[in-house]
Amino acid sequence: MTHHLAFMQRAIALSEKGLARTAPNPIVGAVIIGADGSVIAEGFHDRASSADHAEVVALKIAGEKARGATMYVTLEPCNHTGTTGPCTQVIIDAGIATVVYAVADPNPEAAGGAAALKAAGIEVVAGVGVDEASYSNRAWLTKIIKGRPFITWKVAATLDGKIAALDGTSKWITNEASRADVQKVRRGVDAIMVGTQTVIADDPHLVPRDAIEGKNPLRIVCGTQEVPKSAQVLDGAAPTKVIASKDLDVVAAELLALGVNHILLESGPTLASAMLHACMLDELMIYQGPSLLGAGKNFVADLGALTLDHAMKMPRVSTETFGDDVKSIYRITNE
Amino acid sequence: MTHHLAFMQRAIALSEKGLARTAPNPIVGAVIIGADGSVIAEGFHDRASSADHAEVVALKIAGEKARGATMYVTLEPCNHTGTTGPCTQVIIDAGIATVVYAVADPNPEAAGGAAALKAAGIEVVAGVGVDEASYSNRAWLTKIIKGRPFITWKVAATLDGKIAALDGTSKWITNEASRADVQKVRRGVDAIMVGTQTVIADDPHLVPRDAIEGKNPLRIVCGTQEVPKSAQVLDGAAPTKVIASKDLDVVAAELLALGVNHILLESGPTLASAMLHACMLDELMIYQGPSLLGAGKNFVADLGALTLDHAMKMPRVSTETFGDDVKSIYRITNE
Repeated sequence: MTHHLAFMQRAIALSEKGLARTAPNPIVGAVIIGADGSVIAEGFHDRASSADHAEVVALKIAGEKARGATMYVTLEPCNHTGTTGPCTQVIIDAGIATVVYAVADPNPEAAGGAAALKAAGIEVVAGVGVDEASYSNRAWLTKIIKGRPFITWKVAATLDGKIAALDGTSKWITNEASRADVQKVRRGVDAIMVGTQTVIADDPHLVPRDAIEGKNPLRIVCGTQEVPKSAQVLDGAAPTKVIASKDLDVVAAELLALGVNHILLESGPTLASAMLHACMLDELMIYQGPSLLGAGKNFVADLGALTLDHAMKMPRVSTETFGDDVKSIYRITNE
Repeated sequence: MTHHLAFMQRAIALSEKGLARTAPNPIVGAVIIGADGSVIAEGFHDRASSADHAEVVALKIAGEKARGATMYVTLEPCNHTGTTGPCTQVIIDAGIATVVYAVADPNPEAAGGAAALKAAGIEVVAGVGVDEASYSNRAWLTKIIKGRPFITWKVAATLDGKIAALDGTSKWITNEASRADVQKVRRGVDAIMVGTQTVIADDPHLVPRDAIEGKNPLRIVCGTQEVPKSAQVLDGAAPTKVIASKDLDVVAAELLALGVNHILLESGPTLASAMLHACMLDELMIYQGPSLLGAGKNFVADLGALTLDHAMKMPRVSTETFGDDVKSIYRITNE
């Protein structure tokens, strides 16, 4: 299993090159390995450039060398005809002997791939690197399971949880390295979302620094206040969707209809806390600057917790440091 | 320098065995190394057991083998007669050829050690491992420089900075591993301090778990509310000092008179914030549990910051994780 995992990790790394470029599809990476352990071909799904699934990208490169080889793929190969034909049939036709995949396809339309491969006499190994692959594909997986895009709530706060001082100043609570990391995170999502209040108060542009021209994430503005015509978020740097509703059921349906997998929520506490309360948030990504304010604007509003048992618990996923700042990611389980 | 640093790190590790056992003296470790690089003797100051300074402990073990050897010591050897005679003279008499030390002695009464050793023909190397040694001896160094004990402000809070829910419940915001670490921190300080309000509200015992019998840190209760006679903090498990004043100048003088180097402040936000405002805190040690409360008791009170420039900035010293909890230490510079 050790070499299985190493090849799968390569496939996972490849899959992540597709982040922000595959919605509404998942990110997928594939590696084809010869009997001698050599890498024959690699591929990842890059829907922004081509409809080809990762398996097909790699198989086109491999050609005849695929015969008798092993394919590592981060998601169970699809078994249905969508924009493209079923990957299972292409794999069978290419003569692949073994398919190792990480995550089973939870999409009822596309599932059944493993069974189809086995029926064709291909050896199938499931679940290799499943935790890592599930994590990097969590946005799409969540969308399939929950019926709405995966939402990461991004916060930059002081150690005492303030996102702005009493006079509203908030530049900068975190350092340049943290802010550069936020740009990287923005470049990896399909959409960036704020409330109308944030647009009116801060007039953010919501375009990642150093993004690829024409490939900027969708901007989503949610709420019933009027967005000024001069707002930066309405310029031509990226598409913008205004959802003029406070009804979160309406918002959830609109978000799903957008076809995005991963939304980065950069709103203030009112919208974020309402969405948190409505179980619409999946992840808290908090950057903590090394300071105390004592007074100011809290990043989360009153959640109705009267006693400690009511606290919203959220398992920690990761922690890293950027100079004096600390970034942690928590999984919001709503439990 | 590389082997210098390795031996000094050994001396620093030895010095830390004296934590909570040397006040009002510093922690000090010493290692004596032969010309062939072998360890001849080791020692650390353990005032709770003996008045001997680290250098003398090591030299007594080394005996004649000290002649021509190199001594690594974490603090510049003292040059004055206190409870014991000057270490410089003992080192000269023992025939040590080279003394390598980390931190210069900032205590005017005891300084001049390096000059005295050089005058006697001993080679002296200063500053090896100075950052690490200064950090582990920061409590005593701060006391000498600032004229008051070093105070670490310990906080256990939710991600949004709450130390209790609206109904006052706070058990447990952090996990068992974090709480075990707090016990370890408690065993390494000279005193644990709270306000009378905490005694009345929570009735804490303030005795470290697994402490050595009869070696518990001093308990300090500060404030003008009456401490109930039945309070656990008044039992016989450790000595307790009540400072019945709200005047922080009076409190600082009383703390200095206690002879302690390092105080762990486990008070609520009122006392801690007042001390923070009065520049009496040196370090914030914050354990963050993986939860949000939204409402409840903030760990820090209003500090009078109206705008972000007023925020109290504090460089980060370290970050470690205990399961889903994150512990970070910040140096309070009052800048």
